[in-house]
Amino acid sequence: MDTYPLLDTITSPEQLRSLSVAELKQLSQELRAFLLASVARTGGHLAANLGTVELTIAVHHVFNTPEDFLVWDVGHQSYAHKILTGRRGGMDKLRIKDGLAGFPKRDESPYDTFGVGHSSTSISAALGMALGARQLGQERKAIAVIGDGAMTAGMAFEAMNHAGDEKADLLVILNDNNMSISPNVGAMNRYLASLLTGPLYSGVREGSKKVLDRMPPMREFMRRAEEHVKGMIVPGTLFEELGFNYYGPVDGHDVAGLVKVLRNLHALEGPLLLHVVTKKGFGYEPAEQDPCAYHGVGSFDPEQGLVSKPNKKPSSPTYTEVFGQWLCDQAMADERLVAITPAMREGSGLVSYAERFPDRYHDVGIAEQHALTLAGGLACTGVKPVVAIYSTFLQRGYDQLVHDIALQKLPVLFAIDRAGVVGPDGPTHAGSFDISFMRCLPNMVIMTPADENECRRMLTTGYLLDQPAAVRYPRGKGPGVAPESGLLPLPVGKAEMRRNGKEVAILAFGAPLTISLEVGERLNATVVNMRFVKPLDTQLIQELAEQHNLLVTVEDNVVAGGAGSAVAEYLHQQGIMVSMLHLGLPDRFQGQGSREELLEDAGLTANAIAEAIELRLQGKTCATGPASIISDQTGKL
Amino acid sequence: MDTYPLLDTITSPEQLRSLSVAELKQLSQELRAFLLASVARTGGHLAANLGTVELTIAVHHVFNTPEDFLVWDVGHQSYAHKILTGRRGGMDKLRIKDGLAGFPKRDESPYDTFGVGHSSTSISAALGMALGARQLGQERKAIAVIGDGAMTAGMAFEAMNHAGDEKADLLVILNDNNMSISPNVGAMNRYLASLLTGPLYSGVREGSKKVLDRMPPMREFMRRAEEHVKGMIVPGTLFEELGFNYYGPVDGHDVAGLVKVLRNLHALEGPLLLHVVTKKGFGYEPAEQDPCAYHGVGSFDPEQGLVSKPNKKPSSPTYTEVFGQWLCDQAMADERLVAITPAMREGSGLVSYAERFPDRYHDVGIAEQHALTLAGGLACTGVKPVVAIYSTFLQRGYDQLVHDIALQKLPVLFAIDRAGVVGPDGPTHAGSFDISFMRCLPNMVIMTPADENECRRMLTTGYLLDQPAAVRYPRGKGPGVAPESGLLPLPVGKAEMRRNGKEVAILAFGAPLTISLEVGERLNATVVNMRFVKPLDTQLIQELAEQHNLLVTVEDNVVAGGAGSAVAEYLHQQGIMVSMLHLGLPDRFQGQGSREELLEDAGLTANAIAEAIELRLQGKTCATGPASIISDQTGKL
Repeated sequence: MDTYPLLDTITSPEQLRSLSVAELKQLSQELRAFLLASVARTGGHLAANLGTVELTIAVHHVFNTPEDFLVWDVGHQSYAHKILTGRRGGMDKLRIKDGLAGFPKRDESPYDTFGVGHSSTSISAALGMALGARQLGQERKAIAVIGDGAMTAGMAFEAMNHAGDEKADLLVILNDNNMSISPNVGAMNRYLASLLTGPLYSGVREGSKKVLDRMPPMREFMRRAEEHVKGMIVPGTLFEELGFNYYGPVDGHDVAGLVKVLRNLHALEGPLLLHVVTKKGFGYEPAEQDPCAYHGVGSFDPEQGLVSKPNKKPSSPTYTEVFGQWLCDQAMADERLVAITPAMREGSGLVSYAERFPDRYHDVGIAEQHALTLAGGLACTGVKPVVAIYSTFLQRGYDQLVHDIALQKLPVLFAIDRAGVVGPDGPTHAGSFDISFMRCLPNMVIMTPADENECRRMLTTGYLLDQPAAVRYPRGKGPGVAPESGLLPLPVGKAEMRRNGKEVAILAFGAPLTISLEVGERLNATVVNMRFVKPLDTQLIQELAEQHNLLVTVEDNVVAGGAGSAVAEYLHQQGIMVSMLHLGLPDRFQGQGSREELLEDAGLTANAIAEAIELRLQGKTCATGPASIISDQTGKL
Repeated sequence: MDTYPLLDTITSPEQLRSLSVAELKQLSQELRAFLLASVARTGGHLAANLGTVELTIAVHHVFNTPEDFLVWDVGHQSYAHKILTGRRGGMDKLRIKDGLAGFPKRDESPYDTFGVGHSSTSISAALGMALGARQLGQERKAIAVIGDGAMTAGMAFEAMNHAGDEKADLLVILNDNNMSISPNVGAMNRYLASLLTGPLYSGVREGSKKVLDRMPPMREFMRRAEEHVKGMIVPGTLFEELGFNYYGPVDGHDVAGLVKVLRNLHALEGPLLLHVVTKKGFGYEPAEQDPCAYHGVGSFDPEQGLVSKPNKKPSSPTYTEVFGQWLCDQAMADERLVAITPAMREGSGLVSYAERFPDRYHDVGIAEQHALTLAGGLACTGVKPVVAIYSTFLQRGYDQLVHDIALQKLPVLFAIDRAGVVGPDGPTHAGSFDISFMRCLPNMVIMTPADENECRRMLTTGYLLDQPAAVRYPRGKGPGVAPESGLLPLPVGKAEMRRNGKEVAILAFGAPLTISLEVGERLNATVVNMRFVKPLDTQLIQELAEQHNLLVTVEDNVVAGGAGSAVAEYLHQQGIMVSMLHLGLPDRFQGQGSREELLEDAGLTANAIAEAIELRLQGKTCATGPASIISDQTGKL
């Protein structure tokens, strides 16, 4: 089907509201077909979005969006929402620079009430909206749609605990597909599964109709026999104990049933939880069969499905793969090693490790705070924890990093993936701040590998240290330096001189070394691979300052408080004056785009760096850096 | 009673293990008397510690500490533990510089298995220890003692969710005194209360004996009739659903009963939760009556109790009081204002506001992540959220600050109390990092008031901005500048010239302005009250650099990535070379002590600053700053 007669008429959710149930069903089919065709062209999150077609239609049909607040958790399930809210035309530029964002985004549409990229924020945000509306005396409903995987994060619990107490008018729709990105873990998951076993759920597809038919005069009915009804429909005591009224489970692909139950819930007050069961990839057989593979996809032919690419092993490994291989090798060499991931087994390169060393592998679910303190506790026993985490998700465990690990100087190694510029997922997944927020902490060792082999050696280095250490490496591939097979550390706090030049010294931290070397060739500048943000190679820095007129620091962290600042702080402390130029990410959130586009946008290309240096040498100032924004804000009031 | 015949014989928990139940009872009495006398002399956390005397004795009696891991949550309930583990002699120097810490501390004793100061980390840490021991094939039990208030934090939930899934040998003792620091809030609290109502708990003091008598052959009994027993003893389904076996509630002041139940639990495997009911302040009538007042006390006469000090209003208000007053005034002037606290009503100065504006006040419990995203959600509706939070606790909501507030540029005002040097609570409560971890974030406005009136005006300034803003102020009193009654903002990004001098310009951020002015007088230096960390007053900085030979930045944040670095980054970006000296907190965790002692330790006194400047002017380098530690770490491997 390549025509969408009904979908073509929908440019806003308002039009949805006058459709009949039969039409809503037809719309579901058209929307699913369009989604599949569209994502197959552009790539993107597929399986989750196929799973929420009916739910999206039903919610917009029943609730008065955007007047009623609809918050999508994580947000990679919001494509149908985007299509129905006037952005269908933009789907061709999904996740592309200046195109439609892959997540809800406030700037993009009034229907995107809250920007979401990280998991488990939706209940807090929707509760805030419910309480704000209440304070202003407005009758606006608030709805959070949250996946079952996201329910393991503490902040979802914090929000439910508060909402249950506030008796706020809040509907939480638990979209249960028994899967976040990887299959779920944790007791919550087993608990949810238990709600679906037995006669209750197995009869839902037929049985729910009966249950739902009883619901229209529900308020009266409930008043008469609330406990009785609950006893029948509802085994959701965990939610009940947190102060929510639990309804479900209901079939999330039965649009008629969804509309009915949502209408009933619309009439109720207080905190409500509706348990909806969906199937990731629903309606597209290959995605139903392998939802993991179809979670995020590149472009593909829907007729064919994903074609497994020929095993092109000769190609160089990604940093993620370098880490995964190192982890297995180090675990073979030292049985004290234990690895921890907050629900990112695939993304962090742990699949092989998890298979080979299941007893020394802990996937804690989406629970970064716990992941870090757990690592601290593990370190207290004499085992050697390695926490595999994305830069952006490490922000979720910051206090635990400060107090449970750095303060106690516990030997935990952080393998920080997706540091620096990340790409199409946009600012919520960028790793722009980790150097700044880590280097202010005492006791930390922070390393920035410039190539694959260095990454491996740094991991070994950090692992052997008796204090907290972090290796932060970028998404994707490096320059292609094959990792050695051994487990050799590097000397701590020692930089590597890569090129002797004149007048200008470029101090590169991590990935930008490659372009820095290019610039060095062009300008005959000295180039140093700094390797360590903390401790710095202070001796070399001092020598560089004495022998050059200009020191240029280059990093893929924000300039504000970054590695370049660390170099400057040291020189100032020593009373050494030298002209400095700090290049790095700007003091604004970068949008989405390819890594190359974002690096160009930040001025982190060989051309831009060479130009900035030449301008400086001519005595002119350079626009890169924090001041451009600083001056935007001055006197704003 | 001022003699402690039995307590005098106890120098380690091993001796406890051979005592009879009658002796344990006597020990409880002596220990409680000693605790009261000791804390009345030194000040400290009283009520919580009086409440855990029997529990502490029973745990050490039954478990083989320190081989078995005992983790105290929050840790201000660990005095009895310290006394029984060989540190009774140190109680006279409790919370004093170089004395005994007010919290468990790994450096202090092998019995302090984990440093704790912030709430809700104990289950994660103890689970880590249980899993580490399992990995190493060691038979070591792990016990976490956690208060009911701490159970509202998401990370406690994250840890239970994981522990329930791991089937780890972990005993969580829920010390339920229906109170964290302030009375608890949240659905969890109501849930716990519900466990204590009805015939089950009201009969515990007598009834528990019967229940407990049935327990010795519990494993057999359980096998036969597990569900039946649970149905009788256990209404704790929330915990059961998370995979824990729940026992209780039991009387936490019946040492004989506690020993019995702990012995039974000792024999069981898997995740266990024991619900113990204690009374904060137990055994000391005034503290039982008013546990809030006796939570943390100065020295007092136990015979008399706390004497309410005469109302000495003429004295200048603390920064906390300045905030509390501003909040009420601003709320009167603008009914859109809404205030949020994560369980710090008293500490943050919100008592009066909460009474006067209950509909615009949200105490979310110990739940910083939720607090911030809730504020973001509120801001989306057009109300004006003010988040009152300690600097150290803001670390718990860092990712939410980045994505839910800064990225979306939502107008949330942060009133950050206890920024900079804090004092006797030690490093877990220091506010040393907030400038570094906030100023790297785009869209933030960051203000550092140098006196009380400026604090008030900055709060107004931030409140009126249409973007995220933070005012970070220190603990206690300022220099005594009476706040004006109006609601007048300051110009954003404008510093204040305070003294025109020569050669040297001191750029002071916040509290250190007072000593900076003193230094300015002494050295005839220019002194500027910088006011804004972000945006900086770049025009003035440029002028200062042109007119002076040395710029000295002074702040009570770590130097690494702090406000001084921001000044340097700007000058480097402009290509302006000038000698700089950054003074601030060192790159190490400072211990406990008075504010004055810690400031002296950091070199933040007028004398030390003057000396550092003179040394620099003589061409010598200064030891303050990050490099002292950097060089310690170099080549450590």
